[in-house]
Amino acid sequence: MTQNLLPQSEFSLVVHGGAGTILRSTMTPAREAAYHAGLRRALEAGQLVLAAGGAALDAVTAAVMALEDEPLFNAGRGAVFTSAGKQEMDAAIMDGRDRAAGAVAGICGPRNPILAARAVMERTEHVLLIGESALAFCRAQGLAFEDTPYFFTQARWQALQDTLAMRQAGVDNQDASRKHGTVGAVARDSHGHLAAATSTGGMTAKAPGRVGDTPVIGAGTWADDDTCALSGTGNGEVFIRYAACHEISARMRHAGQTLAQAAQGVVMDVLAPHGGSGGIIAVDRHGGVSLPFNCAGMYRGVVQADGVLRTAIYDEPLVDYAAVTGGNKP
Amino acid sequence: MTQNLLPQSEFSLVVHGGAGTILRSTMTPAREAAYHAGLRRALEAGQLVLAAGGAALDAVTAAVMALEDEPLFNAGRGAVFTSAGKQEMDAAIMDGRDRAAGAVAGICGPRNPILAARAVMERTEHVLLIGESALAFCRAQGLAFEDTPYFFTQARWQALQDTLAMRQAGVDNQDASRKHGTVGAVARDSHGHLAAATSTGGMTAKAPGRVGDTPVIGAGTWADDDTCALSGTGNGEVFIRYAACHEISARMRHAGQTLAQAAQGVVMDVLAPHGGSGGIIAVDRHGGVSLPFNCAGMYRGVVQADGVLRTAIYDEPLVDYAAVTGGNKP
Repeated sequence: MTQNLLPQSEFSLVVHGGAGTILRSTMTPAREAAYHAGLRRALEAGQLVLAAGGAALDAVTAAVMALEDEPLFNAGRGAVFTSAGKQEMDAAIMDGRDRAAGAVAGICGPRNPILAARAVMERTEHVLLIGESALAFCRAQGLAFEDTPYFFTQARWQALQDTLAMRQAGVDNQDASRKHGTVGAVARDSHGHLAAATSTGGMTAKAPGRVGDTPVIGAGTWADDDTCALSGTGNGEVFIRYAACHEISARMRHAGQTLAQAAQGVVMDVLAPHGGSGGIIAVDRHGGVSLPFNCAGMYRGVVQADGVLRTAIYDEPLVDYAAVTGGNKP
Repeated sequence: MTQNLLPQSEFSLVVHGGAGTILRSTMTPAREAAYHAGLRRALEAGQLVLAAGGAALDAVTAAVMALEDEPLFNAGRGAVFTSAGKQEMDAAIMDGRDRAAGAVAGICGPRNPILAARAVMERTEHVLLIGESALAFCRAQGLAFEDTPYFFTQARWQALQDTLAMRQAGVDNQDASRKHGTVGAVARDSHGHLAAATSTGGMTAKAPGRVGDTPVIGAGTWADDDTCALSGTGNGEVFIRYAACHEISARMRHAGQTLAQAAQGVVMDVLAPHGGSGGIIAVDRHGGVSLPFNCAGMYRGVVQADGVLRTAIYDEPLVDYAAVTGGNKP
């Protein structure tokens, strides 16, 4: 597996758009380019914040908003559908400075669920709000809402129909795109602070009310300035049962492991053997970066203080996709 | 603070009924006796399982059911009310053998929320189900339901009115009984397996939709056979932000700490300085027991292979309350 390690940097931003059985054989050049472009937009949004000396918390918020706004990714606009044909989104954010955290689960309405999570963190004494009550809170806070058509995408609807048809035929849909869509961002800012944000529509055809690892602090999302900031994507139940993100942080604090050792160790040696296919993006307090995944691919990107936007999809090095293709240049 | 450590034992069961500002000055002998009796019933329920060679998972289920059935404790019957005058319960269970886990959040209806959590663990591919959808699942699974009057207690209703009145008067209700009610059980069975279970009504006058640490695996509930089984009670948001229970397990695995060192360290040195008042009950894979808390009291009890039911409320040693008082004998 490509290591995708990057060195220390004054600031670092890493994003992901999900991981799973992403195969070149089912991809087209145009679709590949669209994913790279979507990742680059998220990197640019966060880079704007970090290059100006802004906070990691604001950078991950901006990056995840860009990913939520892009229908290609399973979060916000383009979220997948439950078995009941509804969309139920989860999101979480964590500030490494003081471990403040906010999360929402089972909501549909706010244009950017990550802003709902951030509002919980900043404007309540709580960490996690769920369902209709979380929506009422978002309305009271004046968050932007969208109607059902905004969130709808034909591709996700078709994925639900396909999965339901396979279920009816008694076939288990192991297509990882059903299970692994999530977006996330982690950052280290020029002041040495860390933050993490994760947002998801969950699994295609999930049971209504099912909540995965995204809003479970320590499972799919984690940040503390002493160790690292982390955002996961994968088989959420396994991430929860192994407290995947907090385990990485704990290995750094208590076992003296580097970010790369801890992140690779958990993704490859803890999650993979227990059915936890997926990946985790990670940044440490020096701006070092690790992006391990144990499946065929993970939509991912990194920008550091050199300003180069590097992205990748498969088991391959991170590259400046615009420079490679000559496209997507300003 | 009393250490409340107990040695290794062929089997061990520990229960708690919440922690907080529990003062002798506001207690009566009759009320104290009722708490001791409630804890003893929970211990007896789990002891029946363990003494017969049964599984830790079944013992913690039985013990938590007994605590949920007792209106004195804030879980199941006797759960507190949200600011909207409703009851919203959370519960979680974890099996140390394979780290299987199940949890529910924001439900009212199932007589024993811990059975709802266990059904999620045993009968779905998910870990966490929330709200109305979780209730629909419980109904489909044939769990016993109760109507609103069953769960109602005048004392909890009055506590809500008092808190709302204080809020209207601009006074922050710091009464810990508002924030700290939770029940839980952890066990080590004679086969060396561990399990943990936690159940709660949350905080009096909490925002509707607020979820605390109870159903967040790694925060308020944890079990793995390699280290320990844990159940927390306290300021749930802080328990989440410090992944309190998983941190204890991680210190044992990665820092070589004993159960007592890890549990005391997290409760006293991590949670307490950050506003995380409360306590955690803990059992390790040898049946050793630790019950640290950083507030005035924690309703708690232990039974080991010697068959003696030991309980305590304040900062005091665990004693065989029936032997001390001569009451509550068979």
